[in-house]
Amino acid sequence: MTNLSNTANQQATSPMPFGRYTPFVPVDVPDRTWPTKKVEKAPRWLSTDLRDGNQALIDPMTPARKLTMFELLVKMGYKEIEVGFPSASQTDFDFVRKLIEEDRIPDDVQISVLTQAREDLIERTVDSLVGAPRATVHLYNATAPMFQRVVFGVTPDECRNIAVRGTEMVMKYAEERLGAIVGTEDFGYQYSPEIFTQSDTDFALSVCEAVSDVWQPEAGREIILNLPATVEMSTPNTYADQIEYFARGLTRREHSAISLHPHNDRGTAVAATELALMAGADRVEGCLFGHGERTGNVDLVTLGMNLFSQGIDPQVDFSDIDEVRRTVEYCTGLPVHPRHPYAGDLVYTAFSGSHQDAIKKGLEDLEKRAADQGIDVRDIDWEAPYLPIDPKDVGRTYEAVIRVNSQSGKGGVAYVLKTEHKLDLPRRAQIEFSRVVQQHTDAEGGEITPEQIWAVFRAEYLDREAPLRLNSIHTSSATGQKDALDVNVYVDGVAQALHGEGNGPLSAFIAAINELPHDFDIRLLDYAEHTLAASGDSLAAAYVELVVRGTTYWGVGIDANIVTASLKAVVSAVNRA
Amino acid sequence: MTNLSNTANQQATSPMPFGRYTPFVPVDVPDRTWPTKKVEKAPRWLSTDLRDGNQALIDPMTPARKLTMFELLVKMGYKEIEVGFPSASQTDFDFVRKLIEEDRIPDDVQISVLTQAREDLIERTVDSLVGAPRATVHLYNATAPMFQRVVFGVTPDECRNIAVRGTEMVMKYAEERLGAIVGTEDFGYQYSPEIFTQSDTDFALSVCEAVSDVWQPEAGREIILNLPATVEMSTPNTYADQIEYFARGLTRREHSAISLHPHNDRGTAVAATELALMAGADRVEGCLFGHGERTGNVDLVTLGMNLFSQGIDPQVDFSDIDEVRRTVEYCTGLPVHPRHPYAGDLVYTAFSGSHQDAIKKGLEDLEKRAADQGIDVRDIDWEAPYLPIDPKDVGRTYEAVIRVNSQSGKGGVAYVLKTEHKLDLPRRAQIEFSRVVQQHTDAEGGEITPEQIWAVFRAEYLDREAPLRLNSIHTSSATGQKDALDVNVYVDGVAQALHGEGNGPLSAFIAAINELPHDFDIRLLDYAEHTLAASGDSLAAAYVELVVRGTTYWGVGIDANIVTASLKAVVSAVNRA
Repeated sequence: MTNLSNTANQQATSPMPFGRYTPFVPVDVPDRTWPTKKVEKAPRWLSTDLRDGNQALIDPMTPARKLTMFELLVKMGYKEIEVGFPSASQTDFDFVRKLIEEDRIPDDVQISVLTQAREDLIERTVDSLVGAPRATVHLYNATAPMFQRVVFGVTPDECRNIAVRGTEMVMKYAEERLGAIVGTEDFGYQYSPEIFTQSDTDFALSVCEAVSDVWQPEAGREIILNLPATVEMSTPNTYADQIEYFARGLTRREHSAISLHPHNDRGTAVAATELALMAGADRVEGCLFGHGERTGNVDLVTLGMNLFSQGIDPQVDFSDIDEVRRTVEYCTGLPVHPRHPYAGDLVYTAFSGSHQDAIKKGLEDLEKRAADQGIDVRDIDWEAPYLPIDPKDVGRTYEAVIRVNSQSGKGGVAYVLKTEHKLDLPRRAQIEFSRVVQQHTDAEGGEITPEQIWAVFRAEYLDREAPLRLNSIHTSSATGQKDALDVNVYVDGVAQALHGEGNGPLSAFIAAINELPHDFDIRLLDYAEHTLAASGDSLAAAYVELVVRGTTYWGVGIDANIVTASLKAVVSAVNRA
Repeated sequence: MTNLSNTANQQATSPMPFGRYTPFVPVDVPDRTWPTKKVEKAPRWLSTDLRDGNQALIDPMTPARKLTMFELLVKMGYKEIEVGFPSASQTDFDFVRKLIEEDRIPDDVQISVLTQAREDLIERTVDSLVGAPRATVHLYNATAPMFQRVVFGVTPDECRNIAVRGTEMVMKYAEERLGAIVGTEDFGYQYSPEIFTQSDTDFALSVCEAVSDVWQPEAGREIILNLPATVEMSTPNTYADQIEYFARGLTRREHSAISLHPHNDRGTAVAATELALMAGADRVEGCLFGHGERTGNVDLVTLGMNLFSQGIDPQVDFSDIDEVRRTVEYCTGLPVHPRHPYAGDLVYTAFSGSHQDAIKKGLEDLEKRAADQGIDVRDIDWEAPYLPIDPKDVGRTYEAVIRVNSQSGKGGVAYVLKTEHKLDLPRRAQIEFSRVVQQHTDAEGGEITPEQIWAVFRAEYLDREAPLRLNSIHTSSATGQKDALDVNVYVDGVAQALHGEGNGPLSAFIAAINELPHDFDIRLLDYAEHTLAASGDSLAAAYVELVVRGTTYWGVGIDANIVTASLKAVVSAVNRA
């Protein structure tokens, strides 16, 4: 008997050209202390959803979406919000003006704006803030050697001077244009040596020191030194080492906020942030669900929920995580992945029978212990198999999912419909049908086979013939005329000819149905249609979401004719109601 | 002038019930050595896509998809592949039999199968392997206190005995049923103390020692000790501490492979894996793109590419990452997120003008340095702003994306069509139209406004009237009869009546067009249609993907009538061809 390590040792060299890449050389901190530390309180959070996040969207946010995002961030409890890059974009400039002029910034929220270190851009940036009760200017320049050499053609001394001179300009224009703000309210200053992770740490520190020499931080006059991992370079411990090294070397530490700005190129931004907080950082910049250039900024939701799961107040409200998700998806036009920690569709779901069984026993044990102690189950310390937090704490529930072809051998809805019948139900229709199936299994008990699922689906959506049944359809459309629809239907078993007009057969049909004495009062919410295979001769499936007498129903129609399919779907929803 | 830290210090307590959660207590390893280590070679990889990954899919893979996944894994270079849980699922059992009986397992690949520690299940598991040239049995039982107490009601001693007895049973049945395999080829054994991260590390170690006492690892008779972070408990350094502590305490270390099995509940599975490899682990179990229960297993793609980016051979082939992605999306029915490291749609994309400028200069510098050295640019050491790897190394390209309403103020395609015209183009149609826009900007130079984008779109898809133009449409459909379509069209400016029959207006229309003397030879590949707003009276947009004389074209039609819209889309594609 030999063993498999022989096999494994035969691993061949891959065809990948790995020789082109040079390993990252981390700063040497043999006496690092962060591995013994813990994160014990929430850092200060800055949301850059409206700047770095927005900048990297396929469809940048409209002003209305920006405002929706801003209001979400405020409502969740973020107190520092980067709202734009006003010198680089008129849209951003206008949005900052809108927030200020419409007095939309709460008293406990500090907005910030990003600028490069050129005088005209700084002037424009400060101008965007006129009238703001309080604000932070965030200035950056490149301290990474590749940028100095290739992009800007400057020496290290010139680079340091750009930062120093930029800081002087910020102070000059802030004094000049924001006299009121500077004299009476908060004015913050933030400097970023860009890309910190690719810079020599000593050099980045020397630039920050030179900037601080100008700003002169002291009690009540903090400087924020933001150390961006604009590109994630290596394992997350190396960022923590850089942060610990930087923090040790920094003078005026007590008047400086060390801020993190990690990106996720290597998939370890959350970890890099956590280790760097252990290494002494005070503040984190990120985006909800990790939007931002390329792989995104670090995800503020996961960071906050990670603290929460360890008994630490995240100082942000995630109690309705689905609302947060919907709003962010609306504003960004990008989805949250089904496996996204804490918020994805699947993360409180157990598919395997053994997981389902363990969770069931765990939840029963919690109930029992709460009863024994005479307290509410929501007040007992959380402990349950496979569920790191109580889904109810973020407005979700635990879902045991029925599956087909699975370990448990039980019935699964989407699987049967999609693979066996090529039906690709819209998400909300899936949810509706799952409830129908659940009622069936609850009533019948036990398992449900693919055949039974299909029978339930047919009975629920396809086979209902009362009160309405379609017979034949004739449509006419010509340029410049209203479309006409003539449909022969059985209404309560009696053949009847309906005539309707509208901008298309669906609207004509709905109009005709609303004329019936039944007073169905139907209204179309959503419509989707797809072919069942890639050929003009194949069947089409239509899905309509209707409001019928105030309640929402999905209907499904299948037919070779796409018009017939959609009318059948309307009939299906009406008959279900 | 005060500062914003005052504001930040006012952060209010959130309404979240964080007091319910108890912080994780890590094992104490003050003399840990892993923070000074680096990962310097690829670990042994095990893909559990077909077991843990498949187990957590909404739609578990069909046998055909399982085989597609298996063949992908083999092609990429994975040498250890967990192929199922045969005692828990007939489908899994049958799939293992299929691989063996059809001789589909290459000589250098070792499959493994999971089993619980019950004799009947072990017997069934071993039976699934009869005839396999080599294989590993992977046995697990619960060593976490919560599972012992709540789920199984066993004492620690009973728990250890279950593992010991299970190991004896595996050996007994392997000898009995796999005589051939045991005598002549590799037979591997793997044990997992489940959930390792929630277990007392000393207790988990004592169970592993007891199991090893039975298996008696020695040269040529390795044991795999797999230490699952089935639930991720705390910051990733704590897993590394557990692994270093375990490895130090283990006897027969040289004949034991320490294996990691991290999940991603806290979004730090990649980091936990990397730090645990620094702590001495030999082997990693994960899934492509991180599928698996809840938040998923650790992502093998990111782990491999992270090594690659540091000049280390990943021993896996990612050179066509989009093919890997497409295959995994096909097999799992789940998407890879646009920001997924190394593989997402957006990760080699720069949106901001300053990023685009820096990347351009960086790429020019690489070209120049390669020319100076007289070598191909692909042979020069990679270094470019904002791009951690050369996208070409994974079969991708760098994409500078034109944007609307952005920092750069340039034109953006999806944004204009979606927000201003409510058109939601299918992804492939978007790509096609982006190329059209790109040709326009390349020709005209410089920027493109939203108005210009819309003009280009209209001209390309909506306004072409030759050779075909629609006039009027009459359709008839009745139960049991073929649908009839009469269309009046202008062909090369001459009015003409077309008649077609088919299973619907689309197929009838395509049939009629194919009858024209033009010999268009069209065939439908894809069809999608959506309303432009949630009302029956609104416009619909139809998209068709046609093959016209062997080349693929998208066509777009907009009309209040859904039939007219779809026929217009066909006309659009034909006219473009």
